[in-house]
Amino acid sequence: MSWNTFGRVLRFTTWGESHGPALGAVVDGCPPGLTLAEHDIQPFLDARRPGQSKFTTQRQEPDAVRILSGVFEGQTTGTPISLMIENTDQRSKDYSEIAQSYRPGHADYAYDAKYGLRDYRGGGRSSARETAARVAAGAVARLVVPEVTITAYVCEIGGDAIDPANFDADEIARNPFWCPDAGAAVRWERLVDEARKAGSSLGAVVECVAEGVPAGWGAPIYAKLDADLAAAMMGINAVKGVEIGDGFGAARLTGEQNADPMHPAAGGPKFDANHAGGIAGGISTGQPVVCRVAFKPTSSILTPVDSITSDGEAVQVRTKGRHDPCVGIRGTPVVAAMMALVLADHKLLNRAQCG
Amino acid sequence: MSWNTFGRVLRFTTWGESHGPALGAVVDGCPPGLTLAEHDIQPFLDARRPGQSKFTTQRQEPDAVRILSGVFEGQTTGTPISLMIENTDQRSKDYSEIAQSYRPGHADYAYDAKYGLRDYRGGGRSSARETAARVAAGAVARLVVPEVTITAYVCEIGGDAIDPANFDADEIARNPFWCPDAGAAVRWERLVDEARKAGSSLGAVVECVAEGVPAGWGAPIYAKLDADLAAAMMGINAVKGVEIGDGFGAARLTGEQNADPMHPAAGGPKFDANHAGGIAGGISTGQPVVCRVAFKPTSSILTPVDSITSDGEAVQVRTKGRHDPCVGIRGTPVVAAMMALVLADHKLLNRAQCG
Amino acid sequence: MSWNTFGRVLRFTTWGESHGPALGAVVDGCPPGLTLAEHDIQPFLDARRPGQSKFTTQRQEPDAVRILSGVFEGQTTGTPISLMIENTDQRSKDYSEIAQSYRPGHADYAYDAKYGLRDYRGGGRSSARETAARVAAGAVARLVVPEVTITAYVCEIGGDAIDPANFDADEIARNPFWCPDAGAAVRWERLVDEARKAGSSLGAVVECVAEGVPAGWGAPIYAKLDADLAAAMMGINAVKGVEIGDGFGAARLTGEQNADPMHPAAGGPKFDANHAGGIAGGISTGQPVVCRVAFKPTSSILTPVDSITSDGEAVQVRTKGRHDPCVGIRGTPVVAAMMALVLADHKLLNRAQCG
Amino acid sequence: MSWNTFGRVLRFTTWGESHGPALGAVVDGCPPGLTLAEHDIQPFLDARRPGQSKFTTQRQEPDAVRILSGVFEGQTTGTPISLMIENTDQRSKDYSEIAQSYRPGHADYAYDAKYGLRDYRGGGRSSARETAARVAAGAVARLVVPEVTITAYVCEIGGDAIDPANFDADEIARNPFWCPDAGAAVRWERLVDEARKAGSSLGAVVECVAEGVPAGWGAPIYAKLDADLAAAMMGINAVKGVEIGDGFGAARLTGEQNADPMHPAAGGPKFDANHAGGIAGGISTGQPVVCRVAFKPTSSILTPVDSITSDGEAVQVRTKGRHDPCVGIRGTPVVAAMMALVLADHKLLNRAQCG
Repeated sequence: MSWNTFGRVLRFTTWGESHGPALGAVVDGCPPGLTLAEHDIQPFLDARRPGQSKFTTQRQEPDAVRILSGVFEGQTTGTPISLMIENTDQRSKDYSEIAQSYRPGHADYAYDAKYGLRDYRGGGRSSARETAARVAAGAVARLVVPEVTITAYVCEIGGDAIDPANFDADEIARNPFWCPDAGAAVRWERLVDEARKAGSSLGAVVECVAEGVPAGWGAPIYAKLDADLAAAMMGINAVKGVEIGDGFGAARLTGEQNADPMHPAAGGPKFDANHAGGIAGGISTGQPVVCRVAFKPTSSILTPVDSITSDGEAVQVRTKGRHDPCVGIRGTPVVAAMMALVLADHKLLNRAQCG
Repeated sequence: MSWNTFGRVLRFTTWGESHGPALGAVVDGCPPGLTLAEHDIQPFLDARRPGQSKFTTQRQEPDAVRILSGVFEGQTTGTPISLMIENTDQRSKDYSEIAQSYRPGHADYAYDAKYGLRDYRGGGRSSARETAARVAAGAVARLVVPEVTITAYVCEIGGDAIDPANFDADEIARNPFWCPDAGAAVRWERLVDEARKAGSSLGAVVECVAEGVPAGWGAPIYAKLDADLAAAMMGINAVKGVEIGDGFGAARLTGEQNADPMHPAAGGPKFDANHAGGIAGGISTGQPVVCRVAFKPTSSILTPVDSITSDGEAVQVRTKGRHDPCVGIRGTPVVAAMMALVLADHKLLNRAQCG
Repeated sequence: MSWNTFGRVLRFTTWGESHGPALGAVVDGCPPGLTLAEHDIQPFLDARRPGQSKFTTQRQEPDAVRILSGVFEGQTTGTPISLMIENTDQRSKDYSEIAQSYRPGHADYAYDAKYGLRDYRGGGRSSARETAARVAAGAVARLVVPEVTITAYVCEIGGDAIDPANFDADEIARNPFWCPDAGAAVRWERLVDEARKAGSSLGAVVECVAEGVPAGWGAPIYAKLDADLAAAMMGINAVKGVEIGDGFGAARLTGEQNADPMHPAAGGPKFDANHAGGIAGGISTGQPVVCRVAFKPTSSILTPVDSITSDGEAVQVRTKGRHDPCVGIRGTPVVAAMMALVLADHKLLNRAQCG
Repeated sequence: MSWNTFGRVLRFTTWGESHGPALGAVVDGCPPGLTLAEHDIQPFLDARRPGQSKFTTQRQEPDAVRILSGVFEGQTTGTPISLMIENTDQRSKDYSEIAQSYRPGHADYAYDAKYGLRDYRGGGRSSARETAARVAAGAVARLVVPEVTITAYVCEIGGDAIDPANFDADEIARNPFWCPDAGAAVRWERLVDEARKAGSSLGAVVECVAEGVPAGWGAPIYAKLDADLAAAMMGINAVKGVEIGDGFGAARLTGEQNADPMHPAAGGPKFDANHAGGIAGGISTGQPVVCRVAFKPTSSILTPVDSITSDGEAVQVRTKGRHDPCVGIRGTPVVAAMMALVLADHKLLNRAQCG
């Protein structure tokens, strides 16, 4: 069945289709007394917003968020916070042609197989547009964990990775790729532009680091911090892989190489390395929480791909709508939002049991 | 807080510590009328059981499961199925020495940071022994999805991968590595044996394929089939990465390369490829569901590693207990069990909403 | 913490305050393919709407519902249905005086004790206005259980009960009290009018009967149909008691008197009586499901009552806002909505496990 | 579907049938560091235990609880606490005769209608024996809320109520009826004995008071403290009604009569009355939480009642097994346990959100 709620204590429910009148999120369980206004949320939506550069879809929407409940005189009241974003640029006519054809790589066929019908306009509920609601919810979550600093950036596009030696956090917001390596950003500009012109698309890898997470968040077994992060990230549109710390790289190390030695220090141990990505046994260790996420190339491409119609006839599908040549780029603020949501939830979860 | 329940409709709760009197699982929501006896569960536990070869820990336990409820005259009744496995080989003395020292890479420090105390014997609740309960629950889940065939195997140990050209499903159960490539199994025997003798450890990658999953299982957004699989797999001890289909490899493909063209066929479309791993938009497509899981090398090694005591003093820790040189091997039946549990849950979830 | 979601499979989340810009509900898990438009919901909201007669609050609002998601071309799609009702008549000035004083019998003091702050305008989140969102959600739930006919009516006001011998289902919608006994409706008119003029208030008992519920809905132990109904009803504002079947009356019967003998009949047993209210062991028996709900008298009265301010000073509070002299009247459609929501949820729950 | 878990943060799952090998509960989310041993639980089980007097079933079982996990060196560790009680006195032969006949008033018919099969021995999962697991879990919950004192007592049997003027808390444990009125206990002795000898049965009303609950536990809307209590109590076998505070009596009061005036006082307001039963808007007010529960008369009686067989034939059923003439008596410790479980859950819930 549908399941549009995420979280255990700080829980949010999203709703809305790409071409419906609006979309939104209801954030429940937020502590009272936090200062919150639209302008605390809007910058995160602006970062995710389409139409910012030629490297993202040209759909133009202000994505202006409204807070409809849960805030009184500028403060959260502890009651559900309803966030709404109206859809203003819905060119439904772009999609009429594919109403009857399944776009390969999209959810079209699976939705019809499951529900027997679907809102085909712009992907309906399966559109990446739904992630705007998560970004809005994530902005609220950040207020719950002010002790944490979350940084997300693209570390690879089309197989071309950044050079860690060139990492410059200040660079991330300076280029349209959320790229911390100025040199890579220049290369990606050409790479993504070529893909865009060719009607092709590229995959990407996004890394997210949360600093300031104290030791003790998370839980053994089925609410492990890493398991919840994995669910949060794999649930983002177009994501096909998630790693914590060294991830698949750890599978190629020996136990000695993978060790994170600890030394006594004030305020918690000092670690020599962070292969574990800040999580052991599902619980944070006090080191930075590190997560890496693989985005597949956008499935919407100009090259015709064999497919079928909803009547089971053969057809070729090429997507002429406005699309991102590399969805991983706009996925970056979504990754950060999901990190914030998972951490905020676990902060409250930990407080519930461990005071 | 603790959260020891997994699933939404078919839900299971596990309990138990490595060196307590017993461990178990309560499986709730199982359909009535399924034929179930201990002998339906025991073979899966035997497959996971330690002490089977020199490549796994030498702890010797029968791991005999008892069904304490939910079955009457050989059939499930629809009420909770309580499964219990008694712990019989608990050499607690092996662990006395590390009661006060945190084993690097283990959950020891994080548990103390969270709870202020821990059952240090054999890792307590964070021991991989807890996965026996999941394997038992998974055996029940398999009965819920008889239409599905689940195969899990190790495809890489210590960076040495199988050759897909040599894949032989029948080979998997013939060697102690769940390896489908007879040649790789020979190489791994030497590799793992060397690691074992050196007191070192190796990582591994496990692949799991579920055939027979119909199109339509899963759900948009927060109960996506892939998101639930990611949580299930990342929650297994020592797992650091999860991929669906091509996973991180998809991030290096173009949209054209990553396409899974469809053609009309009886009983659902015929696909030319399965880059997507059988899931689109969080919903199964009818193709095999493919998942890949990275296990880090066992953190318990003989080489001393710098660490701290619970009093914050410097110490060196080397683990002399009985341990697996490569936990990924014994993790393989656990991966299969979690696949069964997620699929069974989603089969019932889909039935709830879509009849 | 806040918990604004109800249900297990068909789940709904409400949001909104009495004097915020809007309130709403997100209904998740609804089966696809149901015909749904605003005009399927509006009549139920109109029935609950204030200002209908002098016996309810004079607040005037159209309570027009908008469907913002989850419906495409007139049919539910299986994705979350977002329902929004804008608040149009918010005379916040009426409440300025009680911003600092706790109204006895209201949630004011408890909210401040819990959250440290509150939206005092019209009761904020604790206002009965929130029930409009439930009524809207309930209208969707009714579509999920078309086999069920739900009737709710007031059976007692201020201690004056209907005479079962006069029960006339057609009468219910003919008077402003949802009263099935025309004679009682005449008496209540005077009773409630007197209370209204005196600035006093009266309690009421509402009965709700669901016919057409097949045997087998519900679940043993913690999702018992009666337990879920009890939670649903006790969660309605001003409700202080819930009975199933004979309820407290059953506690005064002997086992012989309380028996519901069964006889063979086509399509399920024929029962001689329904003391059990259609539920045995938490599962429906095929008889009508009968529930009775006690509403306390409105706490807002003109008579001054001793209270304290948020600074802990003594004060006397009398409520001059627009209020219902008998909230149980307008609670009647809410009771029916909650019955629909619980039954729809259990229909889907039963289908999940028992096919 | 089955749903055998209760609670949101402090959650417990019960399992087991009346005549299976054992039954138990898994308590999850319990804070770490609480002192817990079997002897903290056993007295509560002994209070509920059958065979204590001729006024309860003569089934003789020690009901000895074992803690299988979650406790280390006498302290809770924060991991799931598995509690098991072995069934030792299972005279299955007593029930062979009713294997094919549905006992009126019992869950037999409803279970078969739902699941298509049932464990008929002693009622299987629907037996009141399951409540032993709740009582065990409740004993753990009490440790989570040491600031709260919970008192449960029978206030009415067969329509014969106690006189509040005679209330003596010390009397409760002195008679076999948990009766706080010594005179009523004498009358009930005759009443219940007559019913027992006649093979008849009587209903009862149980009241439960929790003192020491601070203001602020509970939550608006769907986790209201009173709604959760209603679910908890209505889910107890044989319960047909639940009241908070004045309950149905409040429906017969005016707003003036039902007011609970507040006055300034140290440590929270002083209330003149407690019609509300300590809960306003779903949140505790700091007054005693008062709940009243109606138990129907035991359905198992010697008088033959018309019924049907599972094949749909007419039959008369009289129950010859060992049964309580008044299940409300042994339900009293169960009511207290559920009160403890709900309060403990809400204490932790409140801590999660409001710190």
